[in-house]
Amino acid sequence: MLELQVPLPGRAYSILIGHGLLTDGTTLASHVTAQDILLVSNVTVAPLYAPAVLAALAGRRVVQVLLPDGEQHKTLDHVSRVLDVLVANRFGRDGLVLALGGGVVGDLAGFTAACYQRGMAFAQLPTTLLAQVDSSVGGKTGVNHPGGKNLIGAFHQPAVVLSDTATLASLPPRELRAGLAEVIKYALVFDPHFLDWIEQHLDDLLALQPAAMAHAIYRSCELKAQVVLRDEREQGERALLNFGHTFGHAIEAATGYTDWLHGEAVAAGMLIAADMSARIGLLPRHDVQRIADLLQRAGLATPPPRMGAERAMHYMSVDKKVRAGRIRLVLLRALGAATFTADYPDAALSATLAAHFD
Amino acid sequence: MLELQVPLPGRAYSILIGHGLLTDGTTLASHVTAQDILLVSNVTVAPLYAPAVLAALAGRRVVQVLLPDGEQHKTLDHVSRVLDVLVANRFGRDGLVLALGGGVVGDLAGFTAACYQRGMAFAQLPTTLLAQVDSSVGGKTGVNHPGGKNLIGAFHQPAVVLSDTATLASLPPRELRAGLAEVIKYALVFDPHFLDWIEQHLDDLLALQPAAMAHAIYRSCELKAQVVLRDEREQGERALLNFGHTFGHAIEAATGYTDWLHGEAVAAGMLIAADMSARIGLLPRHDVQRIADLLQRAGLATPPPRMGAERAMHYMSVDKKVRAGRIRLVLLRALGAATFTADYPDAALSATLAAHFD
Repeated sequence: MLELQVPLPGRAYSILIGHGLLTDGTTLASHVTAQDILLVSNVTVAPLYAPAVLAALAGRRVVQVLLPDGEQHKTLDHVSRVLDVLVANRFGRDGLVLALGGGVVGDLAGFTAACYQRGMAFAQLPTTLLAQVDSSVGGKTGVNHPGGKNLIGAFHQPAVVLSDTATLASLPPRELRAGLAEVIKYALVFDPHFLDWIEQHLDDLLALQPAAMAHAIYRSCELKAQVVLRDEREQGERALLNFGHTFGHAIEAATGYTDWLHGEAVAAGMLIAADMSARIGLLPRHDVQRIADLLQRAGLATPPPRMGAERAMHYMSVDKKVRAGRIRLVLLRALGAATFTADYPDAALSATLAAHFD
Repeated sequence: MLELQVPLPGRAYSILIGHGLLTDGTTLASHVTAQDILLVSNVTVAPLYAPAVLAALAGRRVVQVLLPDGEQHKTLDHVSRVLDVLVANRFGRDGLVLALGGGVVGDLAGFTAACYQRGMAFAQLPTTLLAQVDSSVGGKTGVNHPGGKNLIGAFHQPAVVLSDTATLASLPPRELRAGLAEVIKYALVFDPHFLDWIEQHLDDLLALQPAAMAHAIYRSCELKAQVVLRDEREQGERALLNFGHTFGHAIEAATGYTDWLHGEAVAAGMLIAADMSARIGLLPRHDVQRIADLLQRAGLATPPPRMGAERAMHYMSVDKKVRAGRIRLVLLRALGAATFTADYPDAALSATLAAHFD
């Protein structure tokens, strides 16, 4: 088992990563000490892992809430229902919300915990690769609004995160690959050595080899944690985590957030951002090819929809990263080094959009 | 104009107190610098003061939301509606929510601001004495749940608070007196000199004499701010602010939160807590009489309903201040000095409840 400390002042917590952490149960029992627990999961995940979780927590009071499965249920309405359950069962501030599932369950359960009595503890048992490498660090919780994703939320740090890599075996392969896109993102933005490592171990990762998967999750969380520690409230450096997201956002928005998984759109967006980095001379062209090759091997090489450069520009303009009318982009200065900038020739952005979307 | 700095690390803000601050407008215009403002008020308060606020903010974009008046509307449902307005008007994180009204408006608007895009700025223009001395310090925001008051919420500090004492002229006299109960509370718990001052200036306060009122608000906020700075998340000392609240809670709960104003119940609760303090030898009996005399002069001497000691005990037991089955109480060690304790003889509590509720 790997253990990563996230040393946030006053709210330090551990991320534990291992194969079979949930079925073993002893780690869960010792790291979740609350006596009063609300287990939040969904109808797909709960049948697979809730029995083991309940067994590990024998002797505690565990109340269960199951949500329907899917991003469309990540709403304030469902937060309200979970709050009803907390109230009806007279949970106090010493209780804990335990999120068992992917990002939707974690974001919604975390936000509910943040709001109940102005903040009760919550812990995460992420069961998707995306949640294990992304949602488990940074404290972002929240739900969607019909007007936009994650518009309602809070920063609320977990008490502990237990990432069981064995749960990834139940993940659809497409979601595994979409999760790998985020792993590759951390390497491209922050760490050339990790990029080398991913290239060497990609087949192990795709085959869910436990040690390789644990390392990939550990290093991704570590890189994200370093940024979050320096910029918890997303004032500056944390924006680098959005590498590939602004271009990817155009793809997701144009396709109604249904055809493309978030990680797939981010992968396509990363390649577009790398291409633009090369167009303005920031990044050697052969490095763009190296990224393309890796994404290809990872099964993340779907070309973006030909929505037209103008429409892509429109979707990018309504994203949060616009300031003073200019789109700021995360671009690569090298493999493993990124910059967040509005300082680029407009013609380069137009040419990039034309090349990928026209 | 008086100005109090609340020096919370990283989130310092000012409380400005003066007569005619809203109609003057220059203070508001200079202290609220956002260009994009959501003005949240209610149908009773807005007609009185919104025109002046809008005039002061001429040239900015100001979107208005009016809530129905009353505590029964402090719900997650109304938060959801205000969020809809923020989304529909494409507010960004650089916008500001401006709360114009009493505690209900401030609590709800503040919580909405805390949740929108994981936290946008908000400022308060409190128009009741209770809001001016209580809600404007401490960062507590939130809404009620059918299962309990303020069960849903967040800690979210305002950017600035402007308390216009002229607005108190539009307050029903009963609400003014209920607000004075909280002013008296700060004196009883923290500051014997302030208690002397209140006794000397009570008639000025009841007559809304501007300088006296400004000082009472200033000193109340200052005393509360000192506690909040030492205990922002309510782990210990902040509990002293609940003096009178546990007994008062029984009164409010037994009467369905309708007959008694919160401040009235707190006033009755303070006298009961003082009586119990005397019963166990903490406080001289003549000090209890001094409190009773002051509350009498302030029009806050309504005897509690004769609900029976057992029922009072029941309501107190379901309050948040219970730990390990024992009710912890804020008791007085002297006038201007309080203690939060579960260390008292059960017989003293029974006798106190019998004396006041049987």
